[in-house]
Amino acid sequence: MDRSSPSVPVAGSRFLIVGGASLVGSATAEALLRRGAGEVVLLDNFAFGSEAAIAHLRDDRRLRVVRGDVMRLPQLLAAAEGIDGVLHLAAAMSISMDADPWTGLDINVRGAQNVIEACRAARVRKLVFASSNAVYGYGPGVAGDLVETTPFHSAGAPAGAILYGASKIIGEQLCRDAHRRHGLDYVVLRYSTVYGERQHYRAANALYIIETLDRVRRGERPKVIGDGSETKHFLYVGDAARANAMAFEAPASDVAVNVSGPAPVTTLELVRLVTRLAGSDLAPEHVDPPAGRVRLTSGGAFRIDHTAAAQAIGWRPEIAMEEGLRRLIRWRDAEAALDTAVPAE
Amino acid sequence: MDRSSPSVPVAGSRFLIVGGASLVGSATAEALLRRGAGEVVLLDNFAFGSEAAIAHLRDDRRLRVVRGDVMRLPQLLAAAEGIDGVLHLAAAMSISMDADPWTGLDINVRGAQNVIEACRAARVRKLVFASSNAVYGYGPGVAGDLVETTPFHSAGAPAGAILYGASKIIGEQLCRDAHRRHGLDYVVLRYSTVYGERQHYRAANALYIIETLDRVRRGERPKVIGDGSETKHFLYVGDAARANAMAFEAPASDVAVNVSGPAPVTTLELVRLVTRLAGSDLAPEHVDPPAGRVRLTSGGAFRIDHTAAAQAIGWRPEIAMEEGLRRLIRWRDAEAALDTAVPAE
Repeated sequence: MDRSSPSVPVAGSRFLIVGGASLVGSATAEALLRRGAGEVVLLDNFAFGSEAAIAHLRDDRRLRVVRGDVMRLPQLLAAAEGIDGVLHLAAAMSISMDADPWTGLDINVRGAQNVIEACRAARVRKLVFASSNAVYGYGPGVAGDLVETTPFHSAGAPAGAILYGASKIIGEQLCRDAHRRHGLDYVVLRYSTVYGERQHYRAANALYIIETLDRVRRGERPKVIGDGSETKHFLYVGDAARANAMAFEAPASDVAVNVSGPAPVTTLELVRLVTRLAGSDLAPEHVDPPAGRVRLTSGGAFRIDHTAAAQAIGWRPEIAMEEGLRRLIRWRDAEAALDTAVPAE
Repeated sequence: MDRSSPSVPVAGSRFLIVGGASLVGSATAEALLRRGAGEVVLLDNFAFGSEAAIAHLRDDRRLRVVRGDVMRLPQLLAAAEGIDGVLHLAAAMSISMDADPWTGLDINVRGAQNVIEACRAARVRKLVFASSNAVYGYGPGVAGDLVETTPFHSAGAPAGAILYGASKIIGEQLCRDAHRRHGLDYVVLRYSTVYGERQHYRAANALYIIETLDRVRRGERPKVIGDGSETKHFLYVGDAARANAMAFEAPASDVAVNVSGPAPVTTLELVRLVTRLAGSDLAPEHVDPPAGRVRLTSGGAFRIDHTAAAQAIGWRPEIAMEEGLRRLIRWRDAEAALDTAVPAE
């Protein structure tokens, strides 16, 4: 094995996913195991992660689950021993940051510091750091093609969202600093809003999908806040998992790239699409925004460009929104059927 | 005294300056005492602050110096008791952040959290938070008029500088959050690079002034890195101190404004001006940038607009660069004379 190359072949290698019992964590574990990983360790404090998210993987002997917290450096040091590649997912997102900025900044800033320190101490070969399009900010300034050099817009955005974006900028720079200082190889992936099977309720933007589906399933009209003209750019969780695996395998290092779905949609288009895929023709109802809630809206239309990811790690999104939503709805309906079935057993 | 107004009259009020034994801290203490403050407490860990910076104030019975650290919440809680207004200056700047990002982020993020927590617990009436034009970032994107809605540019900038800017963005948002959550009144002042008497060596941009003066005084040609065409926008320390006092007195709250000098200069203009004011006609020598050092250069010409400060707190800069530099040089020469005189006594 060539230890001087930043390429970490998945087959036979050992991986640690920090924040592993999550939407992206479980899908990435699945992808790494499928590609022949020697071991996948999921570290999670189960504050947002869940046993349900990783239940489908528990039969694989190469999977190990560690209860641990990103705030506790000794736990990370222990978990990172003998690991080739670390994927750092644990983070407080905008809603959590809004609810408790002190804790949120601890998780995102101190947490990133701890993970990087563990990578350095354990001589981990590569870190894949989950960043976000939140590094481009929010509000009317966020328009057009968002490329990797787009600045961070914050004028008019809620504090929680700005704190989240700024904390991700800091995490990225801590990776750069560790590369310069200690030679730690890393790839930063700036995910756009992830959706898919085992969808959780943490991401403010992704809530629309589940909320719409739940209302339609109850026979209620789906709700659209405002006119629904603002842009959203989603990423199917399987595409995110594949990007993580490819970031480990690629010879790329010291780089930050966008990872987004094939194309953006407006909120109105999204709600109509989910409604149609759920087999309904209910018309959306436009409502006023609830006061005080963290809303991440954009003034202009934007598209999160992912051509740099193709150059750096050879990745392109494969799953169109309609197909990804079909899979999500199928999973959600199966879960609902299971919930209903259990009491009858 | 109207406790419902965000205005804190300086006369008779008690102030705490966190990071007080500093360039801006000592000048602000002087300004507050001159305006009749009842008490001024300077809290400093003397890592960058110095006894020399506050020696000229030590005879005032209303001044109290507390050795304390922004990382130790109990010390801040004790220092904030009975205080009407807090000025938070303690921060790691780009060079410190570059040297040790872990500690730098602790000081700037945890430090801001601790100061805000102390303000809340002690029912401080107003916090003035020292931010920076670093919230607009670095590099070619930073051009034209920098107004309060200008986004944060980081493409191509060194990690230490980005970490510093992002940490200041976070500090500002923590103030906003505390205002919303606890009603804490605050004004954020985004200083441009401060210079003046008792100039320290922490600010990367301000180094040029002292370096040029020192070289010219030794009869050496002043050095200019590159062609010296990049813009800098300085702020005289006395103008910064007056802005702090006015931010306390103004009825403004929940606002962030630029505080900058009358006009920007290029590095070459600055070096020529310092040389001339030092009574020399030595021509500047253009040199290559030293490798690895944090350099904060801009691609385009910029001007940090301060009209919002006039609207919010009634402040405008008064001291032109030439006059401010004259004062700085007079102070520096007097210090040098004193240093020479001491061994002979």
